[in-house]
Amino acid sequence: MPHQQSKAKDKRILVIGLGRFGSSLALELVNHGWEVLGVDSSPRLVQTYADALTHTVIADATDEESLIQVGANQFHRAVVAIGTHLEESILTTSLLVDMGVPDIWAKAVSRRHGRILEQVGAHHVVLPEHDMGERVAHLVSGRMLDYVEMEEGFSLGKTRAPKELIGRPLRETGVRQKYGITVVSVKRLDTEFTYATEETVLHKGDVIVVAGRTGDVERFAEVN
Amino acid sequence: MPHQQSKAKDKRILVIGLGRFGSSLALELVNHGWEVLGVDSSPRLVQTYADALTHTVIADATDEESLIQVGANQFHRAVVAIGTHLEESILTTSLLVDMGVPDIWAKAVSRRHGRILEQVGAHHVVLPEHDMGERVAHLVSGRMLDYVEMEEGFSLGKTRAPKELIGRPLRETGVRQKYGITVVSVKRLDTEFTYATEETVLHKGDVIVVAGRTGDVERFAEVN
Amino acid sequence: MPHQQSKAKDKRILVIGLGRFGSSLALELVNHGWEVLGVDSSPRLVQTYADALTHTVIADATDEESLIQVGANQFHRAVVAIGTHLEESILTTSLLVDMGVPDIWAKAVSRRHGRILEQVGAHHVVLPEHDMGERVAHLVSGRMLDYVEMEEGFSLGKTRAPKELIGRPLRETGVRQKYGITVVSVKRLDTEFTYATEETVLHKGDVIVVAGRTGDVERFAEVN
Amino acid sequence: MPHQQSKAKDKRILVIGLGRFGSSLALELVNHGWEVLGVDSSPRLVQTYADALTHTVIADATDEESLIQVGANQFHRAVVAIGTHLEESILTTSLLVDMGVPDIWAKAVSRRHGRILEQVGAHHVVLPEHDMGERVAHLVSGRMLDYVEMEEGFSLGKTRAPKELIGRPLRETGVRQKYGITVVSVKRLDTEFTYATEETVLHKGDVIVVAGRTGDVERFAEVN
Amino acid sequence: MPHQQSKAKDKRILVIGLGRFGSSLALELVNHGWEVLGVDSSPRLVQTYADALTHTVIADATDEESLIQVGANQFHRAVVAIGTHLEESILTTSLLVDMGVPDIWAKAVSRRHGRILEQVGAHHVVLPEHDMGERVAHLVSGRMLDYVEMEEGFSLGKTRAPKELIGRPLRETGVRQKYGITVVSVKRLDTEFTYATEETVLHKGDVIVVAGRTGDVERFAEVN
Amino acid sequence: MPHQQSKAKDKRILVIGLGRFGSSLALELVNHGWEVLGVDSSPRLVQTYADALTHTVIADATDEESLIQVGANQFHRAVVAIGTHLEESILTTSLLVDMGVPDIWAKAVSRRHGRILEQVGAHHVVLPEHDMGERVAHLVSGRMLDYVEMEEGFSLGKTRAPKELIGRPLRETGVRQKYGITVVSVKRLDTEFTYATEETVLHKGDVIVVAGRTGDVERFAEVN
Amino acid sequence: MPHQQSKAKDKRILVIGLGRFGSSLALELVNHGWEVLGVDSSPRLVQTYADALTHTVIADATDEESLIQVGANQFHRAVVAIGTHLEESILTTSLLVDMGVPDIWAKAVSRRHGRILEQVGAHHVVLPEHDMGERVAHLVSGRMLDYVEMEEGFSLGKTRAPKELIGRPLRETGVRQKYGITVVSVKRLDTEFTYATEETVLHKGDVIVVAGRTGDVERFAEVN
Amino acid sequence: MPHQQSKAKDKRILVIGLGRFGSSLALELVNHGWEVLGVDSSPRLVQTYADALTHTVIADATDEESLIQVGANQFHRAVVAIGTHLEESILTTSLLVDMGVPDIWAKAVSRRHGRILEQVGAHHVVLPEHDMGERVAHLVSGRMLDYVEMEEGFSLGKTRAPKELIGRPLRETGVRQKYGITVVSVKRLDTEFTYATEETVLHKGDVIVVAGRTGDVERFAEVN
Repeated sequence: MPHQQSKAKDKRILVIGLGRFGSSLALELVNHGWEVLGVDSSPRLVQTYADALTHTVIADATDEESLIQVGANQFHRAVVAIGTHLEESILTTSLLVDMGVPDIWAKAVSRRHGRILEQVGAHHVVLPEHDMGERVAHLVSGRMLDYVEMEEGFSLGKTRAPKELIGRPLRETGVRQKYGITVVSVKRLDTEFTYATEETVLHKGDVIVVAGRTGDVERFAEVN
Repeated sequence: MPHQQSKAKDKRILVIGLGRFGSSLALELVNHGWEVLGVDSSPRLVQTYADALTHTVIADATDEESLIQVGANQFHRAVVAIGTHLEESILTTSLLVDMGVPDIWAKAVSRRHGRILEQVGAHHVVLPEHDMGERVAHLVSGRMLDYVEMEEGFSLGKTRAPKELIGRPLRETGVRQKYGITVVSVKRLDTEFTYATEETVLHKGDVIVVAGRTGDVERFAEVN
Repeated sequence: MPHQQSKAKDKRILVIGLGRFGSSLALELVNHGWEVLGVDSSPRLVQTYADALTHTVIADATDEESLIQVGANQFHRAVVAIGTHLEESILTTSLLVDMGVPDIWAKAVSRRHGRILEQVGAHHVVLPEHDMGERVAHLVSGRMLDYVEMEEGFSLGKTRAPKELIGRPLRETGVRQKYGITVVSVKRLDTEFTYATEETVLHKGDVIVVAGRTGDVERFAEVN
Repeated sequence: MPHQQSKAKDKRILVIGLGRFGSSLALELVNHGWEVLGVDSSPRLVQTYADALTHTVIADATDEESLIQVGANQFHRAVVAIGTHLEESILTTSLLVDMGVPDIWAKAVSRRHGRILEQVGAHHVVLPEHDMGERVAHLVSGRMLDYVEMEEGFSLGKTRAPKELIGRPLRETGVRQKYGITVVSVKRLDTEFTYATEETVLHKGDVIVVAGRTGDVERFAEVN
Repeated sequence: MPHQQSKAKDKRILVIGLGRFGSSLALELVNHGWEVLGVDSSPRLVQTYADALTHTVIADATDEESLIQVGANQFHRAVVAIGTHLEESILTTSLLVDMGVPDIWAKAVSRRHGRILEQVGAHHVVLPEHDMGERVAHLVSGRMLDYVEMEEGFSLGKTRAPKELIGRPLRETGVRQKYGITVVSVKRLDTEFTYATEETVLHKGDVIVVAGRTGDVERFAEVN
Repeated sequence: MPHQQSKAKDKRILVIGLGRFGSSLALELVNHGWEVLGVDSSPRLVQTYADALTHTVIADATDEESLIQVGANQFHRAVVAIGTHLEESILTTSLLVDMGVPDIWAKAVSRRHGRILEQVGAHHVVLPEHDMGERVAHLVSGRMLDYVEMEEGFSLGKTRAPKELIGRPLRETGVRQKYGITVVSVKRLDTEFTYATEETVLHKGDVIVVAGRTGDVERFAEVN
Repeated sequence: MPHQQSKAKDKRILVIGLGRFGSSLALELVNHGWEVLGVDSSPRLVQTYADALTHTVIADATDEESLIQVGANQFHRAVVAIGTHLEESILTTSLLVDMGVPDIWAKAVSRRHGRILEQVGAHHVVLPEHDMGERVAHLVSGRMLDYVEMEEGFSLGKTRAPKELIGRPLRETGVRQKYGITVVSVKRLDTEFTYATEETVLHKGDVIVVAGRTGDVERFAEVN
Repeated sequence: MPHQQSKAKDKRILVIGLGRFGSSLALELVNHGWEVLGVDSSPRLVQTYADALTHTVIADATDEESLIQVGANQFHRAVVAIGTHLEESILTTSLLVDMGVPDIWAKAVSRRHGRILEQVGAHHVVLPEHDMGERVAHLVSGRMLDYVEMEEGFSLGKTRAPKELIGRPLRETGVRQKYGITVVSVKRLDTEFTYATEETVLHKGDVIVVAGRTGDVERFAEVN
């Protein structure tokens, strides 16, 4: 379907709200070759990102006419990164929905806020404070160096190689049978991460990424 | 060293600030068997989490005496999850540092805020809005289903199996040579994620997790 | 269907927000034999209507638990009469929708507010300021004594009987042919309104209600 | 009396306050051929309606000199649609009264506010929130589709035709004798409303407007 | 008329608002044997005057029920000494008018405020700031020691006896013919004021009160 | 003394603060031929009186340099009519004192405020709210039409001529002996006030001004 | 004079305002055996110092009656340490002056504030921010370790002993002749300060206090 | 070390914050030949000191780019004299630390604030309110005319010469033995301070500066 394809290839995006979340997202997209139109009602914020983003506009995104003037209805993708004021976040999302923007991401500050954004018609809802809170919970013990749950029940964890895995090929360690996890990447001192195979031999001080069920990854990290 | 060991095994933690970030973190820790003392100056928030957390106290964490009364100096680990007011976040962190808490995590709302927390003596600084902004930037194209950068330059991405990898063992696809990435896990419809090996044969509709350099993971996701 | 019937006969209603609109509505319902539970976060307002309404509760209707405690999910009908704060109005409506209340009326202060309430799932949206503004517009000329548009394009107007309709049966006046309206009720000095028939003879000073297309009713009122 | 006549024909009106009520009223009047001068102290509101209204002025209507400059004393009719601030509403009305504007309509937010506006000299007082609250009270049962009390004790209601009125001329149904109401208009599927006569035969699904004493209209609506 | 008489002899008064104006007025009345009921919404002010006034009540005088509870409708005289907030001053006056209090005095802060109070139905309106401003204007030259305009165009002034009036009976000075004023009272050092007659001889240092047309009194004061 | 004389003749005055009190005072002075420099920090107030006063300046009178720029130190007389903010009133007075302005009048809102102004060095302090409160206290009985205490213990009162004084020369009425007061002025219907002599004969409906000890004037007013 | 003596020996003091300045002053006095009554309107501050000070009272020091109740008029000495609000500082000082407290110290935030406090009658005025600003100005070069101007033009400075003064008795160094300053005290490493005489021999690393004219002390400090 | 030397000779300084403390400090430095760049975000304050200081700039010192633009990183010395807002004080200090300014002085309002400034990296912290509070505590008895603690436990006090020291050389008075203090300077009526020697003879009315342990200086002052 030609339209789908053009949409998929369309690397233009509208980012409304240039606070911490919105600006980080927008800058990252520009770094990956996207054409980003950044909109905020604060002249100070717009000026701050005027050079870094492809286009920036000072506009009140809760006002339908303003949204039309910035061409919001021409975008295939929009991110509503307005965070502090529920009302503005909901108003803007509602307007984008009624303009027919086909792919709307919206940031919420609470589950109920997220639910309302879905009810109003947002296609994806993100809860940064909530998600990062859960993620950091897995790091405070100091056993895991990073952690992310890729799907309900399936996680990836970065940790130091435990003693019992050191010195022989992974296949001989029985780590899958014993802990239910797979070593997927390994990083030796002063080198970059690379993939691990059955033949990989870990050394003391190696940092590894393991994949597995959330509980198994947790338990494995406690081996150290 | 016995003390170290006891510290490592010590699953007690002090969480100051029960907003979105702090409460999500605290609840996740309780779910994983930690003993969490939640502190907030808002009676409403403390009441909300009174049942879910191990202990909760209404206290002004910017007041030294209050911190001593809740036994803050007895903890090996503390999280300063105060977000909105820089001043309170910095005051509390400063007090915990001077009390000698050996492992302090602090949430920042901006890079400079984060820098000050480090200068004051926090051991780990987290920037949820900023980090999630960057992470979501990789999802808005719709090609990747989830994404996380585990280390500067090394990322993991969740994506649908592209056509050219389907129907033969991964070893025969030359995916590592061609794209520089490794398929580390695979999820078939109605099953859970499992690890991928050289022999794994992908099917249409499979969801896979790939690991590799950030740029390579990005490029691979665009194959679809 | 027994449930439908019980619902139709169910004269219990939840009114959230006891400002001008909510309290007038609630009092009118009590006068017609309804059992009204009035909810507001303001102790002063709740006290004001404590005697007049069947039940009153001080509660924050934006809080899910509070709504459950007042038994909101047990009602077949609810009115969200929160007016000033969009956010609270939307939050409360969203909660009632997710609780499955089958008949939700919500007051809006603007068209966009109304649209969001619909998107969130309200079944009926009312715009008092807007509707009354339009209605009063038809009265300021002084020719019509009252006016209401019952449906897009069909209106009823109260006016004094114009000279040319006086003194002979309505059937002989050709008012329907000439003005496109029907005289449906008539009120003679010191009597009550009664229905008008083809045989009714109007007198000087009679007040009549006429029905017809909005434009026709308007034009007829200008005859005087 | 020539002056009266010129006044009656004078389709010029001053609308002070362009909030929801004032702007809806002003727009409706423009649609019916009136020349409307809209006044508000908010530049944003005045700009919003600058194109739609005949004239608009930014002015502080609580200041006598400003009112004179906009020519307030030249109007035969004025609407004080200032709602939120009692003080401003009263000040403006008082000034218009002393300028001798012969027909002043004022919006009130409470009965006491309305009473003061009358004491000050307003000729008509409107209470939108209160009136709409009462009106909607008659709709929430779902039996009536619209409702308006045209005069203390005399109402009009829109409802679906009840089964017992279907299939024979209205005269044979004895509806007036039995319920005390008159069917004044009828609307068949996909057609517009038209007047009903003694000969009209209702069909299933017809929507009708009935007139009668308030209590009778209420009771009739419950027949369904 | 017995009622009139009882009213005239009735030395009971309601003073609403115990600020500077209200409290000074109330205390002066108590000193002259009146029975004063002082009402204010501020507990602090009510407490301050609890001992000095006959009765004091903490009440919101803008609330009809509160006014009835303090028995406002039983008084023949009331003073609305609420100054800062126009709205409260007008609301209270409106309520007293509708309760039928026959003699209402109200303090205004501006002419328009005063006019509204009259429109609402106050019987007497006082403008302290305005009146004292005019009065003090006549004192700043230092020639007059006190001054009051008793009626439009007729004033009384206190001044030192000018040289040309000293040493002979007033009748011989021709002061009435020359300046158009009459010396009505005289005060010699260390004595009290007493009336002046045609025979009175003024001495150096005497202070006199003169009466006459405003302009004449002004001119006379400049003689010194 | 030449300087005194020039000062006495100097009809220039600085009025700081153009609220109710200050503007009334300033306008009255202009009407009597004074040259008034009106100063206020509010552009709106300064604009309002720009035409009516001799000179007006927008300036912050709590700033020494601003005061010098308007030439405050050149004036022999100044009125500090700043009322609401004690701080500004005191600061301005203190500056004028240190600039050596020889005759400073200052308005106070309370006795303590007045005392501080004296301590700081103001030469005359006026308490409008307080003084008017006391004055009006003598009018509310309705027996006196106006009243002013010219000196501690000596008052003037305007009242209707009581029956027993009517119809014969004042000398024959024994009013001085009986009531201790003197009739100093009389006003007949449709004429102006004129002085009263021993020979004056009062008529029914005459309004008179009487002078005497405060208590005597009060008592005399009750004769009616 | 016995009263003077008792006053001189009287070590009781009233400190009004327990902010940074007031509390530091009060605590220092308690340490030196004074009996301090600390007064503040903030319950929090009073509670903080309840144990450390001899007596503490929560009271509004701008209210005459409150001051009398705490016995302010019984004290020979009082410190008005209210800083932020000019108005409160002036009101309290004015009250203490009128109560006849013979020795009043008052803290000011600006020179004009200080001047007003003097005009009102304070006996000593302190300007902490201003004085410390000047004092620190002499330290920022790093040459002086501490500095204080004891009197206009005469200062004391703490500095390291310069090379040319080391190793011989001070009398032989000619420091008085050359620099115009006197070395008055000396502190050797790990010992306390002691007085210096003509015979004192300075060593490398000694810290000395020198006295002299401000300019001379400044210049001497630059020798290093 | 050449750099040190150039730094020591460098009389350029950056003063951020031109309130009471900052401006007093800046003006004193200018008086002593320093080149001062004064920075404040308040245009009013910057204008006030534009003439008196070497350079002044309106800038937000919490913004890194602004600091760079004023050349903050070029200075060897900076004073952060921002007082009221902890956050701004800390942000600015943190920025200056990271820019590598080698000598940063910062003003704190509380001990904890001071501690944070040290943790962030300020080299010197000043607490004006606190220090002046302690200093003034030694003056309120009236026995000491000035007082300063130069080091923990070592103080200087200015006082009148007590009777027992008058009339003979200081060496004969045994003041050091008896009181543990040294008379270091003396000021005779109408002359300046000069140093005191063993031979100095004090006269009645002389003012002296004594040095010694804090307790001894206190006790000596009580001799009078």
